[in-house]
Amino acid sequence: MTATNRISATISPEGSLEVLSQQEVNRLRDSSSKGVHEVLRQCALAILNYGPLIDDSRSVMETWQDFDIEVVQQDRGVRLKLSNAPAHAFVDGQMIRGIRELLSSVLRDIVYVSNEIEHHPRFDLDTSEGITNAVFHILRNAGVMKPSRDPSLVVCWGGHSISREEYDYSKGVGYQLGLRELDICTGCGPGAMKGPMKGANVAHTKQRRRNSRYLGISEPGIIAAESPNPIVNELVIMPDIEKRLEAFIRLGHGIIIFPGGVGTAEEILYLLGVLLHPDNVDIPFPIIFTGPRSSADYFRRIDEFIAFTLGEQARERYRIIIDDPIEVACSMKQGIEEVTGFRREHQDAFYFNWRLSIPEDFQQPFVPDHRSMASLALHRDQRVHDLAANLRRAFSGIVAGNVKEHGVRAIERQGPFRLNAESELMAPLDELLTSFVAQGRMKLPGSKYVPCYTLNNQ
Amino acid sequence: MTATNRISATISPEGSLEVLSQQEVNRLRDSSSKGVHEVLRQCALAILNYGPLIDDSRSVMETWQDFDIEVVQQDRGVRLKLSNAPAHAFVDGQMIRGIRELLSSVLRDIVYVSNEIEHHPRFDLDTSEGITNAVFHILRNAGVMKPSRDPSLVVCWGGHSISREEYDYSKGVGYQLGLRELDICTGCGPGAMKGPMKGANVAHTKQRRRNSRYLGISEPGIIAAESPNPIVNELVIMPDIEKRLEAFIRLGHGIIIFPGGVGTAEEILYLLGVLLHPDNVDIPFPIIFTGPRSSADYFRRIDEFIAFTLGEQARERYRIIIDDPIEVACSMKQGIEEVTGFRREHQDAFYFNWRLSIPEDFQQPFVPDHRSMASLALHRDQRVHDLAANLRRAFSGIVAGNVKEHGVRAIERQGPFRLNAESELMAPLDELLTSFVAQGRMKLPGSKYVPCYTLNNQ
Amino acid sequence: MTATNRISATISPEGSLEVLSQQEVNRLRDSSSKGVHEVLRQCALAILNYGPLIDDSRSVMETWQDFDIEVVQQDRGVRLKLSNAPAHAFVDGQMIRGIRELLSSVLRDIVYVSNEIEHHPRFDLDTSEGITNAVFHILRNAGVMKPSRDPSLVVCWGGHSISREEYDYSKGVGYQLGLRELDICTGCGPGAMKGPMKGANVAHTKQRRRNSRYLGISEPGIIAAESPNPIVNELVIMPDIEKRLEAFIRLGHGIIIFPGGVGTAEEILYLLGVLLHPDNVDIPFPIIFTGPRSSADYFRRIDEFIAFTLGEQARERYRIIIDDPIEVACSMKQGIEEVTGFRREHQDAFYFNWRLSIPEDFQQPFVPDHRSMASLALHRDQRVHDLAANLRRAFSGIVAGNVKEHGVRAIERQGPFRLNAESELMAPLDELLTSFVAQGRMKLPGSKYVPCYTLNNQ
Amino acid sequence: MTATNRISATISPEGSLEVLSQQEVNRLRDSSSKGVHEVLRQCALAILNYGPLIDDSRSVMETWQDFDIEVVQQDRGVRLKLSNAPAHAFVDGQMIRGIRELLSSVLRDIVYVSNEIEHHPRFDLDTSEGITNAVFHILRNAGVMKPSRDPSLVVCWGGHSISREEYDYSKGVGYQLGLRELDICTGCGPGAMKGPMKGANVAHTKQRRRNSRYLGISEPGIIAAESPNPIVNELVIMPDIEKRLEAFIRLGHGIIIFPGGVGTAEEILYLLGVLLHPDNVDIPFPIIFTGPRSSADYFRRIDEFIAFTLGEQARERYRIIIDDPIEVACSMKQGIEEVTGFRREHQDAFYFNWRLSIPEDFQQPFVPDHRSMASLALHRDQRVHDLAANLRRAFSGIVAGNVKEHGVRAIERQGPFRLNAESELMAPLDELLTSFVAQGRMKLPGSKYVPCYTLNNQ
Repeated sequence: MTATNRISATISPEGSLEVLSQQEVNRLRDSSSKGVHEVLRQCALAILNYGPLIDDSRSVMETWQDFDIEVVQQDRGVRLKLSNAPAHAFVDGQMIRGIRELLSSVLRDIVYVSNEIEHHPRFDLDTSEGITNAVFHILRNAGVMKPSRDPSLVVCWGGHSISREEYDYSKGVGYQLGLRELDICTGCGPGAMKGPMKGANVAHTKQRRRNSRYLGISEPGIIAAESPNPIVNELVIMPDIEKRLEAFIRLGHGIIIFPGGVGTAEEILYLLGVLLHPDNVDIPFPIIFTGPRSSADYFRRIDEFIAFTLGEQARERYRIIIDDPIEVACSMKQGIEEVTGFRREHQDAFYFNWRLSIPEDFQQPFVPDHRSMASLALHRDQRVHDLAANLRRAFSGIVAGNVKEHGVRAIERQGPFRLNAESELMAPLDELLTSFVAQGRMKLPGSKYVPCYTLNNQ
Repeated sequence: MTATNRISATISPEGSLEVLSQQEVNRLRDSSSKGVHEVLRQCALAILNYGPLIDDSRSVMETWQDFDIEVVQQDRGVRLKLSNAPAHAFVDGQMIRGIRELLSSVLRDIVYVSNEIEHHPRFDLDTSEGITNAVFHILRNAGVMKPSRDPSLVVCWGGHSISREEYDYSKGVGYQLGLRELDICTGCGPGAMKGPMKGANVAHTKQRRRNSRYLGISEPGIIAAESPNPIVNELVIMPDIEKRLEAFIRLGHGIIIFPGGVGTAEEILYLLGVLLHPDNVDIPFPIIFTGPRSSADYFRRIDEFIAFTLGEQARERYRIIIDDPIEVACSMKQGIEEVTGFRREHQDAFYFNWRLSIPEDFQQPFVPDHRSMASLALHRDQRVHDLAANLRRAFSGIVAGNVKEHGVRAIERQGPFRLNAESELMAPLDELLTSFVAQGRMKLPGSKYVPCYTLNNQ
Repeated sequence: MTATNRISATISPEGSLEVLSQQEVNRLRDSSSKGVHEVLRQCALAILNYGPLIDDSRSVMETWQDFDIEVVQQDRGVRLKLSNAPAHAFVDGQMIRGIRELLSSVLRDIVYVSNEIEHHPRFDLDTSEGITNAVFHILRNAGVMKPSRDPSLVVCWGGHSISREEYDYSKGVGYQLGLRELDICTGCGPGAMKGPMKGANVAHTKQRRRNSRYLGISEPGIIAAESPNPIVNELVIMPDIEKRLEAFIRLGHGIIIFPGGVGTAEEILYLLGVLLHPDNVDIPFPIIFTGPRSSADYFRRIDEFIAFTLGEQARERYRIIIDDPIEVACSMKQGIEEVTGFRREHQDAFYFNWRLSIPEDFQQPFVPDHRSMASLALHRDQRVHDLAANLRRAFSGIVAGNVKEHGVRAIERQGPFRLNAESELMAPLDELLTSFVAQGRMKLPGSKYVPCYTLNNQ
Repeated sequence: MTATNRISATISPEGSLEVLSQQEVNRLRDSSSKGVHEVLRQCALAILNYGPLIDDSRSVMETWQDFDIEVVQQDRGVRLKLSNAPAHAFVDGQMIRGIRELLSSVLRDIVYVSNEIEHHPRFDLDTSEGITNAVFHILRNAGVMKPSRDPSLVVCWGGHSISREEYDYSKGVGYQLGLRELDICTGCGPGAMKGPMKGANVAHTKQRRRNSRYLGISEPGIIAAESPNPIVNELVIMPDIEKRLEAFIRLGHGIIIFPGGVGTAEEILYLLGVLLHPDNVDIPFPIIFTGPRSSADYFRRIDEFIAFTLGEQARERYRIIIDDPIEVACSMKQGIEEVTGFRREHQDAFYFNWRLSIPEDFQQPFVPDHRSMASLALHRDQRVHDLAANLRRAFSGIVAGNVKEHGVRAIERQGPFRLNAESELMAPLDELLTSFVAQGRMKLPGSKYVPCYTLNNQ
């Protein structure tokens, strides 16, 4: 099962997308429309390459540069022709069915976004409403909104590179959620994104629960580093980070946050920033920060940073539960019941939280580069949700500088990003980031972390 | 169960379309966007009003002018709020589930066409390719292309107002098709569109066949006169006649033609015109004309007319089988096996006949009015498929003048359509049309037929 | 499709019984255990010979004397090897799946009764409790008790040889029952046993109701004359008439009686006799006699006969509804709701009416011959349920003399049965029977009826 | 979740047995028929008490002496009324559904064996054929023979108290079997019985395999010590050890043996003894001994003991694979393909290996007590399969002396069992048993083992 084992094969997509028009097939095949085909190739590789934990997506691409995927039309629909695919996606020459399904989802979303969202006059991506509408259509096309189901979708966030103890804890939480007939949604990948699904899967088996949901939401820039585990039985590829975050909070009925690194901090700031918007104060949304005993310090630091930057009001939005999976599950179950009651009372859809206002600041794609990072307004002389939006962008840029191809390249070329912060903010921000490094939450264990940013006084 | 029985109720859509965006809901509700809402109202009424056989769609609309349908958003998705709906769509206050499903299909297609097809730059409805692409997308969105199924879809055409003997015969053919595990597709409505489905349904029950298909393809202009029988378990509303005809021949794997009137003649000319196009000569497509002993004369006349207008080559495309349902079913089964072999050999999709060339002449909507009807080129000094296209239009116009709202109004205002034909063509055309009148195949039995056309020498 | 068309084939059983022990297979194959194999052969032939309406089961047996069935063991379970089977059970060489399922049911019940009921010390067939226990076990083994279902099983009784108008009416009633999500149980065969199932099947299709039940309960002596229609999707072969009658009233939640002949009269007397037993007076059990306008006279006569023999109390047990299928269905639906409430209140099973007391007189097989028929106590100087039991036997004997092999032979040898009745009873009994003859309800239309009984003064 | 947490509740059985006759219910409730009710109570407790690992079934019974189970009749079938049941079988007051299913299976089998097998004249339990027939009927009634499935059932044997490394290895083997679409059958309980199921479950999830089988076969004497994991989705309770062993080898298509203790040795001797019978020499049956690197020595000792006692011929029946789960799975897959071919060729059932001859010596229940143990013929002056049968009994007695209630009591009262062996046999037997003790394979880790036997020269 070494990395050099390669298999070439033609496979049938499963489930989601078997019927393509000739135009759609041609577009995917057209080597001149490099963009679409290359995104498909990279996402497909991430799916197939599930397993080995690699933080540097460039190395994956280099190892598998001879990998290719082609869409061909046949009597029963399209087929995917793979060349030099990773052998461990196959068992005795047959692709594992879960992987085949995930591949199909990737194809489905790339086709849809390319054909129906981009350049479509209906979706005015310059407005908040237009972006939300695009998010809705991508999710509907993916079939992930289930109108007949009661609210049950728990989003789990947290690091992909966590300790064994934290991983086992996340599994235990997933198990307790699963026993209570809750479903799991994560960002895909290993660590805190995989643990809850594995735990829930065992519990669902014991509860003989059919049609359980293990929903993964990814995006092309991160999927190479966070390949979906084949337990994921629904996968959506959103076009960018911001739409992915919007998908999480519009689909999920509650959120559990496990220990993580700067990416997790980005998610927390996004979430709290949105919820602190005045339009959203009355909307129930259960949020729990949890981890084993050993993570108590981690959450204390996060909690302090939030209190300092966003204030006490932000603190009321979440509960910290240390080392008690049953309490986490019971508390989440109860929180979701409140969400259900609220939605019913207001005739709101169970499957998409239309009511939530997401300011355009949180929706417009942030492209981190040296200029955009340097110009972020990191001071407390602004509305809390605006500060949250800017902090979110700062963390997002650090993630890019750490693991995303274009970010890593930029750092290599121009040195670290320079962040300019208000002086009172500098210390807490620095402490938080330093503690992530100290706790090994930046990049993977083993590789020594060289910061991709410097903090400067404004 | 009188026509004055009305029920108002709020119901859940079934299956196809439960998740709508706020934009889509608003569009359907917007009374100013009269077009979309009115089409929805008329199609919905046709579904609910299933049962009584009425040829004049205006009288339906008048009787039910206080009927309305509104789309509302709720926790589990959209609901349909019906006011003053026909009571016989309900049993003890509950809507019959099959009717609820058909209503949902109507909603789904109207939303899709209005949001995704019209004014969408991707679909260039001025080109043949663009039209075919639109047809494909509507059908895919409706979920009627089943990539995992072997070819089994038999399109049945024929009159909605036929004799009891002909109806029973069509049922017998459906029964024999059903015993052989074939599915039925018709244009909806009574008569030859209902008989084969009823027969097949009994046979499928005996064969314990699950997931049998009773596919109806309609369009807004005809659905009021040809309400889908609730046996129909898949329904698609195409935007116009020409896309509906294209849907039939791209989805169907074989076609059986029962006795009918001028609408059936339109379908036959469309079908043969397309197949006679030089690009299509090698494509297998089993076509059977069949009826009981008493219909032998009907088919003789059709056959002669085809021979005279389209030539011997056209005759080779179909087989006439009189009074032998088992032979019809066996012959169709064998024909479909040839289609299957051909598609497999050419890597063609089973579920959509991409290979068929449909000239734009057959695709562009023909709007019959006194001017367009008068200018049709009805002479044999053109390619046979061009003549077929024009004869098809002529028959289409007569159907409109007979039963469609706008056509009937035009005739009332301006008198009959004037058709100008080559002199050699006049006699056969006149004979054919007269024989339809004599056999009571124009409009319903009971009402005396006043022709909506006159035939003139060119 | 002539009677001489024969097919030999090996088929797989469907569903109910695919796994047999070697002992069980050997027993079925053993030519020396003539009994079991011959019963299997006759019942199998009845299933396969479905279609042609023949009253004389002997002629069936003679026509198909070269038919045989053999059980063989294979890798995936047992197979049935058929020799010279009626060709119309097959379509293009494949047996119709519904027929295959019914064949399997026959095999299942014959194996079970022969192996588990007969000579099994647990079932003391000399006691009422033992017989009921045997009935329960046969039904449980057949899988026809569905604990998760709400009461919905309507037993329909009536003649297998009724007029077209009566048949269409029974279909209309079945349609209305089916729209209301009720299931149908009959004795199999044509006429009033088939009509309600066909009607319900159409309604269930429209209601998209899956798992609808069309339950047939037969017995070896009658199945040849009343072959199950392949719409029947659950079939039980009870060992004798009395257990079959017990199965009907313990499984059914309500009973509808259509016009019929002496067999229907037998069923009515059985039913009323049981319900008149003092133990059963408080048990709700909706009973409706119904038919088209033209059957009003038929039910008037039955009603008078019941009033005369069993008294006014018996009349209160049923309702006569003429020519109103919707009223029949609504009334039955309501009656079944009362049954449901009663069972729930008393913690009684929904799927088997344990509470009903069936006196042993109604349970012990009655073997009609000249002696037993002559000695029946047909007078009113006994408890009404005893009189009902004896009248039931008298009618049962007449059915045997009319259509059952051994009965017809006995009449041929020894002349008509002699029934001895109290003088006041003679006239009404004679009138009733004569009216059956006059209305053509004895034997089939066309054959002139020669009575198989004489009535004598006691 | 302490052992003192108790819940009383009334639950519905799931799936297998919802319909009981009044006689059957009464029998289960009858406190005088102590036997049946007590077996039910003990088995039910074992199911509910899943989780804590306890070797001494007596202590379980003492802790839970106030636990009771009662069968009650209700409208939708029987209910189980539990008093003082272990709380960890419930989540928020609801019993875990998998546990409810297992409870139902226990009830089903106890009812069946008590009503249909014992004292039933058809099953002559004094003959080999009669015992096999009883085994077949119990398994058929449990629904575990699936005629439509291809052979795929891998029996996994091994210790319930193994090292973490061995457990993880067994999970890895299960994972590889599961990826190859194989099903798992074990004796229930922890350790090597649970690992393969857990591994296969993950793999089946990835392969999106529905209807995977995790079949547990237990018996009343062992179930308290080896509670079924709720992943087990089919459970059969055989009446005694010997019928349980017969069930394993008649149902399984191949057997994998992981490290274990004396119970595993018993199973190996049973298996090889049967296969060495001259009637069985040509029957393919893949057997693999496997474990991680650290277990190599264990298997070497077993292998030597087999070679010494049963000869080289026995060695040819199995393959030893160390530390290679993929090789184990591929080899087993191939072995099962050979079994499939053989069965097909010989028209043998896939679901029950009728062809295997099991000498009555292996079938008759062996009741270990001081007398029966002392009189076992443990010498090589007999046919190998006779020696295997006697060694099997010796090991079986030691298991009873170690963990079964009656055995432990007998040892407490009368001291260790005395085994009399041929002198050449004494050393190898002693070494094998001593190595089990040394490796901690007798009883659980932590408790010091006091042998329940002494070995004497014959």
